[in-house]
Amino acid sequence: MKDGVVQIGLIGHGTVGGGVVKLFQKNLPLLESKAGTKMRLAWVSSLERGTIPVIGGTRPAYTANWRQVVEDPSVDIVIELIGGLEPARTIILSALRAGKQVATANKAALSKHWMEIFTEAQHRRGLVYFEAAVGGGIPVIQGLNEGLAANRIQRIRGVVNGTTNYILTRMTEENMSFANALKAAQVAGFAEANPSFDIEGVDAAQKLAVLSSLSTTGWVRVSDVHREGLSGIDLWDLDFAKKRLGLTAKFVAMLDVVGDRFLARVHPTLIPETHPFANVRHEYNAIIIQGDFVKDVMFYGKGAGALPTASAVVSDVVYLARQVAGGIAGRMPYVTFDRSRRMRSLSWRDHSTRHYLRFNTADKPGVLASITKVLSRHGISIASVHQEDGPVAELDVVRRSVPVIIVTHEASEGAVDDARSAIRRLPGLSRRAVHLRVDSLR
Amino acid sequence: MKDGVVQIGLIGHGTVGGGVVKLFQKNLPLLESKAGTKMRLAWVSSLERGTIPVIGGTRPAYTANWRQVVEDPSVDIVIELIGGLEPARTIILSALRAGKQVATANKAALSKHWMEIFTEAQHRRGLVYFEAAVGGGIPVIQGLNEGLAANRIQRIRGVVNGTTNYILTRMTEENMSFANALKAAQVAGFAEANPSFDIEGVDAAQKLAVLSSLSTTGWVRVSDVHREGLSGIDLWDLDFAKKRLGLTAKFVAMLDVVGDRFLARVHPTLIPETHPFANVRHEYNAIIIQGDFVKDVMFYGKGAGALPTASAVVSDVVYLARQVAGGIAGRMPYVTFDRSRRMRSLSWRDHSTRHYLRFNTADKPGVLASITKVLSRHGISIASVHQEDGPVAELDVVRRSVPVIIVTHEASEGAVDDARSAIRRLPGLSRRAVHLRVDSLR
Repeated sequence: MKDGVVQIGLIGHGTVGGGVVKLFQKNLPLLESKAGTKMRLAWVSSLERGTIPVIGGTRPAYTANWRQVVEDPSVDIVIELIGGLEPARTIILSALRAGKQVATANKAALSKHWMEIFTEAQHRRGLVYFEAAVGGGIPVIQGLNEGLAANRIQRIRGVVNGTTNYILTRMTEENMSFANALKAAQVAGFAEANPSFDIEGVDAAQKLAVLSSLSTTGWVRVSDVHREGLSGIDLWDLDFAKKRLGLTAKFVAMLDVVGDRFLARVHPTLIPETHPFANVRHEYNAIIIQGDFVKDVMFYGKGAGALPTASAVVSDVVYLARQVAGGIAGRMPYVTFDRSRRMRSLSWRDHSTRHYLRFNTADKPGVLASITKVLSRHGISIASVHQEDGPVAELDVVRRSVPVIIVTHEASEGAVDDARSAIRRLPGLSRRAVHLRVDSLR
Repeated sequence: MKDGVVQIGLIGHGTVGGGVVKLFQKNLPLLESKAGTKMRLAWVSSLERGTIPVIGGTRPAYTANWRQVVEDPSVDIVIELIGGLEPARTIILSALRAGKQVATANKAALSKHWMEIFTEAQHRRGLVYFEAAVGGGIPVIQGLNEGLAANRIQRIRGVVNGTTNYILTRMTEENMSFANALKAAQVAGFAEANPSFDIEGVDAAQKLAVLSSLSTTGWVRVSDVHREGLSGIDLWDLDFAKKRLGLTAKFVAMLDVVGDRFLARVHPTLIPETHPFANVRHEYNAIIIQGDFVKDVMFYGKGAGALPTASAVVSDVVYLARQVAGGIAGRMPYVTFDRSRRMRSLSWRDHSTRHYLRFNTADKPGVLASITKVLSRHGISIASVHQEDGPVAELDVVRRSVPVIIVTHEASEGAVDDARSAIRRLPGLSRRAVHLRVDSLR
């Protein structure tokens, strides 16, 4: 504090950082009335200077060196928005060590260094708020951490990655190919030049790890999240699933908790068109949290974009400022983290779900019989078989091949994996097969 | 506190109170780990004793006299669940005066005594938490108050009353009459023996007043909420709206804020079948909050029932206990309430929306012409006119009358009200007309 004013340092002045500056500029009196204290954005730190406006009569100081912000003794709250692992981790830890409070949107650093960061926070009696790390502007972290605090969290289902959802929406609604939809996402500003983090599900896995750690009061690592990306997705299957099965593809993050065991996974999933997630379009996110007393609660809103994400960051800052002004910051922890709680992942191979399998067969009698025989030998029960007339032009490797689609009843991942290996060795089949999960999400 | 244990007194042991006891019984170790302190449900107060189980090794003391709870110096947190205005108001105020923190589900007392309760809370540096007052188990109060704190709240749309939503769902989906659907709601336990509070929209208006006061940091009174009940609703219109207009009836609470002016209203509303609210069924609630930075955020879940509501109450208690244990309860306020902020209601008559009007006419040529002439004279532009073939059997007062349905473009409430008065004086019309609002909720 300086002259009774809570001092805030912003590190990272990119898209979201720009939104934060804009929010301070527009709503400062409102923020101060909510926080019950005067506030000042004292610093903006980034590699490039950019334009920094006057806010509430003064212009924030600029520095290219984030250490100046963390080392300024008058700074109370550090906003970390540079993303990635380093120097973000060092910024968060240094700020805590310097007795400051932290607001961050950084799911990568949080999920990777959960134990280190929240141990340091406990040790230093500091606070790390991170509403913007999951779901953009949607207050799902507050909701889960505080509003549902009385519940044992049993499961989570979420559409939490804007890029993959944008791509799937364009593919499904406009019959766009994956490549074109990805390009459109980049043009719309939802996908990075190197989109692999989103497409391969890393971003969603990090967010799920954050939600899972918060839900279990333990630490669920990103490496504990079973992850399958979107890059194998074909328009042909989305179209078939919609027209013939009444299903829509969504990139879904899922957590199931049973005692100290959990299963966390992100992968493309075929869900009923009647499920609320089917209407979660473009950059929107939705998260359903099931607690033992509250049952299902859904949060929905913009999961990306400068202004919604800034809303989450600055709402955190308001609550931190309240505590700083009351002289009580760090007198109660924000996150319940139990170092001694060992969360163990359930076996992926043992997990059962319904499966959508597409094989590309040479149109010979007998191939379908061989496939179903293999499935049966692995104890996989078939719900429906569809043999389509024409070849799948755009993706066939084996010419003149014909797609065979099999939807199974519940079967374990292990059994399906083994069966697919066996089927791959059958004659008359293209090597490339498509495997999606089918889930009612109920 | 007693022996380092946070002491909790529960006043009111009805449906929700029973859920709270059950939650403490089932999840006490979890609650304690989240709160970072031992907790004890020390008292249960209600007029009838009921069954009080052993929780964490001890059985809460019972008293018929709530004053014993409020006057016990070791009690830190009082849970008020008796509902209604008195003695609930006195319990909340007495608890604050005795230096205790309060969790309540009481939208009636909060909305009526907002200024008194939060002035007292400021004065005594006490906290009143009330997650359960709106939306049952949905953490919408936390979300609005904290997670969206950085935003200027521009509008709210909510399905917040379980009884009316249950009735409308059964009517719409099962072609049930209003009377039968009401009976079904009572059998299912969602409607009171005297359901007029719900049916007339008082409950929804109280909830909207709470959300509105929180949104504006001022005080929006229940008497400022324009309120129309559900009792005039006819199955005929729901059926017609669905089949001919693609619209579904929902009982919607709405707030619009422009600076220090607002419009708050609850009434049955015809909304597009494609709007997310159309799938909010039975006792579920949904609330969409629009902030200037976050845009629309939706919260969805069970808005009624013992266990979901107990989830909200006890989540509040966990957060109060955290602050009590940290010795910081009341060192920062929960609700931002600005006594000096004068919120003024916009004129209801000036408010514009689309209207659904049904008149029952003697089937004479010329009646339709007279109606449309009156509407035109009042500057009301017609979007569509429907004259149905047969009479509306179940509700006709004038025999052999024929329904004429008119859907207008946007027109002010005042103009429509005046036009209806004039139309009422036309010959050949049944006195009874139906008037619903049509809103895309976009």
